[in-house]
Parts: sequence; structure tokens; C-alpha cells
Amino acid sequence: MFYFIIDALGIIAFSISGVLVAIQKKMDLFGVFIIAFVTALGGGTLRDLLIGNTPVGWLKDPVYLSIILGTVVFAILFRTRLKYIKKSLFLFDTIGIGFYTMIGIERGLDTGFSSIMCIGLGTITACFGGVTRDILCNEIPVIFRKEIYATACILGGIVYFLLREFSINDAYSYMASIFVVVGIRFLAVWFKIALPNIYKTT
Amino acid sequence: MFYFIIDALGIIAFSISGVLVAIQKKMDLFGVFIIAFVTALGGGTLRDLLIGNTPVGWLKDPVYLSIILGTVVFAILFRTRLKYIKKSLFLFDTIGIGFYTMIGIERGLDTGFSSIMCIGLGTITACFGGVTRDILCNEIPVIFRKEIYATACILGGIVYFLLREFSINDAYSYMASIFVVVGIRFLAVWFKIALPNIYKTT
Amino acid sequence: MFYFIIDALGIIAFSISGVLVAIQKKMDLFGVFIIAFVTALGGGTLRDLLIGNTPVGWLKDPVYLSIILGTVVFAILFRTRLKYIKKSLFLFDTIGIGFYTMIGIERGLDTGFSSIMCIGLGTITACFGGVTRDILCNEIPVIFRKEIYATACILGGIVYFLLREFSINDAYSYMASIFVVVGIRFLAVWFKIALPNIYKTT
Repeated sequence: MFYFIIDALGIIAFSISGVLVAIQKKMDLFGVFIIAFVTALGGGTLRDLLIGNTPVGWLKDPVYLSIILGTVVFAILFRTRLKYIKKSLFLFDTIGIGFYTMIGIERGLDTGFSSIMCIGLGTITACFGGVTRDILCNEIPVIFRKEIYATACILGGIVYFLLREFSINDAYSYMASIFVVVGIRFLAVWFKIALPNIYKTT
Repeated sequence: MFYFIIDALGIIAFSISGVLVAIQKKMDLFGVFIIAFVTALGGGTLRDLLIGNTPVGWLKDPVYLSIILGTVVFAILFRTRLKYIKKSLFLFDTIGIGFYTMIGIERGLDTGFSSIMCIGLGTITACFGGVTRDILCNEIPVIFRKEIYATACILGGIVYFLLREFSINDAYSYMASIFVVVGIRFLAVWFKIALPNIYKTT
Repeated sequence: MFYFIIDALGIIAFSISGVLVAIQKKMDLFGVFIIAFVTALGGGTLRDLLIGNTPVGWLKDPVYLSIILGTVVFAILFRTRLKYIKKSLFLFDTIGIGFYTMIGIERGLDTGFSSIMCIGLGTITACFGGVTRDILCNEIPVIFRKEIYATACILGGIVYFLLREFSINDAYSYMASIFVVVGIRFLAVWFKIALPNIYKTT
């Protein structure tokens, strides 16, 4: 139940971020819904396709679709007030990528991949919904340009496998890694930290 | 045979729509062919990937490739006259999405998905060829912005499952749903109906 | 061993081409890495997804990831000098598409597809990494617009199946086809040959 609530909060946060971008692009109702959908579920879908874990999850369980539909209706009705909850959104979104990272890592471990590939799958789960959103909106994906986002997922994944190495209880490692992802993202946004700039000399 | 002809007409219409967009973007011959191909088969390909129904259909049956190749050659040779058949094209395209919607729904039923997911798969089959076309041409997908297109597919799918509920003969429900898709799209274009505008107050 | 070296050279050349495009788009370190990755492995990934050959290869063997990581680090460190090796890059890239084409054809033959579909899979393997790179960078794919690139792959594939038809030793056919791909691309670039222009009359 706890996991389900967190998962749902992540989907809601991702959906709302999709709605906001789609509205900015003046999309119609269908477009707004699709952008919300791919933002929330695109990362997990790509992960499942790469693993060969088909049919993809959301086809089998309509709860995902329902949450997204509800969120989109809510977000469109209250679209002028979404700016007031921008901070809560950032909170959900950040907790969301923490959990999505660990969900992706778990799926990788279930299929027996090496730890590096599991971290890759976790990062794909957390980040590629946003990448697909930006491609459909005809933008260069924002996480390729300026934000500490994927980096937080990768570091969280590394911490998880280090803690496992020291045979620490799996539930603790799991939670600790999520805190690492969330913490790094918070610190990066708070202190305006970005990846090292490689363009000074070019 | 009847189904095959309709299916082929849909592929031809979608291919020509791809050729028209690719020519507008000044693509070369290879680019024009690829855009025609993804417009015609992109939706079904995404559906099959999501379901896990691989290898995807067009790899197994070269007839699809042949139809598209022939259409592209024809469309390029007569490219200056394509505007005269624009109305026939719209007809084919609209009949095409009607059939594609039902093909997608059938594939979903075969795999045992819920009716909502089947409608989703039908809509993906009918619409995502055009979405992939627009992405490859560096445009925001047109169906996210202004046309009643996906909405027609969704409503047609709902009608199909309602008719099934009343245990009406499946072939009748099938044809009726196609008429609903085609009819809604015709009416929408005729009366210039779009989805409700959500941008008045923003 | 010989194959591995050529394969690695192809991956390196494709990765560097990805790094160059990503730097031009002012992406950050993570973005540069992802663009290098999809340029090198995007074509093979799409091929494996379409065939249903999952999990995709690079999830199972970390050597691909290692080569790309090493190349990206190298390319970023020496980014100001990359222009001096542009000719070597073109060489690697061209040899790369030759081998990628044949790898794709082989995978198609293993799965029992017709020769036309095998050529299609070879072309996808060689070309769609670059297509994905361009889409993620918000450009219309360059191979749809002006370069003899896919055409070289297609012709190389046709030569391969013609030679097989005459029951020529498979290893010879294999190498001959790679030479055809490489040769056509070299000649096309040397003599500035493009596909016939279809825009004179429009």
C-alpha cells in the first residue's frame, strides 16, 4: 500500500509536468492527455521493451490509465492555479524519480543483468518519460541540457549496489538509495549545481 | 479479399500522406520512402511492440512493403497532380483509420486485454503512424494540436464495445464502429469541429 | 577477434559522430553520452525490438557500454582537436555502416526472413542510430535529406544476395558486400553524388 501511494504520487507528478509542457505548446485535449501519459509511463515502457518484458505493464493494469486520466482532468480544470503548487510538484517529481530508479533497478535484477545495466535501466525508467515528452513537443530534451537529473539516478543506483556489496539489509539499501537520488536533486536545485561545463574552450 | 482491399487502400492513403509531408520538407528519395513507410506502418508497429507480438507483421509479409514502394513511386511521378486527388485521399485516409482502429482492437481482444486497453491499442494503430511521421519531420504531431482524429477512433471503439455488450452480431458491430469513426471524422472536418479550446483563460 | 575490432571501430566512429553533434547542440555531459550511445547502438536496438530479439544485445554485454564511455571521455577531452581526425572518422564511420549492414542482414537470415526484409534490417542497423541521434537533437534526420548513406547499405545488401544466388562462398560474399557499401559511400562523397533531385518541378 505504501509503495502504491508513492508510485501513484510519482505518476501524478509526472503527468502534471506533462500537462504543463503540453499546455505551453497549445496542444488540444487529446494532445495534453498523450503528453501526460508518455511523461508518466514512457520510461517504464522503454525499459520493458528493451528487456522484452511484454505486454508492457500499463496494458495489463488499467489503474495507471485511470490515475493519469484523473490527473489530467484535474490539472486542466485548475490549470491557472498550478503555479501555486509548483513546489509540491517538484517534491512529488523528485520522490518519483527516486522510486522509478529503484523500480527499474529491481526489474533489471529480476532479469539477471549486471549492476551497471541495472543502474542504466533505473535511469531509463526515471528519465525517458521526460525525454519522450520533450521529443513529442519538438524540444531538445531538457535533461540533456541543463539539469542534474539523470546524474542523481545514476549516483543513487551506485549507492544501492555499494550498500548491497556490504550486505546491508535490502530494504534499508533501497530506502537509502532513494534518499540519495532525492537528496542530490534537491541540493543541485537548491545550490544551482549543474554538470561541469565543457563549453568554455570551444 | 474485401478486408485486404480496404487494408491496402488505408496503406496507400497513409503512404501518400507521408509522401506529401516529406516532399514539403524537401527530403530526398530515401527520406520520402521512409516517411511513407512509417506513416503507413508506424502505428501497427508500435502496437505490436507494446503487446510483444514480434517479429512485427511487415517483416513477415512483403506485401506491405510492395504496396508502399509502388505508392511512393506513383506519388513521386505524379506529385504535381496529387492536389487534384486530395479529396479521394481524405476519403481513403478516413476509411483507413476506421479499419486500423478495429484491427488494433481485435489484436487487443486476441491477447485478452480489457476493453479500455483495446480501444487504446486501436487508437495507437490508427494514429501513431502520423505521429511518427511528424516527429521525423521535426513537427509537433498535428493530431495533438487541432484535428478530431484520435477522438473519432476512441468514440468508434466505445461504440464497438457497447454494441458487443448488447450481444449484437460481431460483424455488424465491427462495421458499425468503422462507420462511427469515419462519420465523426467527416462531420468534424465538414463542420470544422475541434476539441473544446482550453486556452481561452490562459 | 578481427570482427570484434571492426565492430569496436564502428561503435567508436558512431559514438564520436554523436559527441560532435551533441556538443554542437551545447548539451551537458549526460546528454553528450546519451547521444553517443544512441548513435552507436540505436540502429541495432530498433532491429532487435522489431525482430523480438530481447533483451537487446547491449544489456547483456557491458563491453559496448565500456567502449562508448571510453570514447566519450576521449572525445570530450580532445574535442578541440577532433576536426583534425575528421577524415579518419569518415573512414571508420563508412567501414562501420558496411559491417553494421551485414550484421543486420545476418540477424535477419538467422530469424528466417526473406532477402528483402534482411536488407531492410541491415539498413535499419546501419542507419537508425543516426536517425535517433538527429531526432533527439531536434533535427530532421540528415540521411533523409542529402546523403547517399542508406542507398549504399541497400545496394550492398542486394549485391550480397546476388552473390549468394550464384552460390559463391559466404565469407567472400560477406566481404564483397561490405566493400560495395564502403565503395559507394566513398564515391558518392568524393564525386558529390546525391540521389536524383525530385524538386526541380515543384
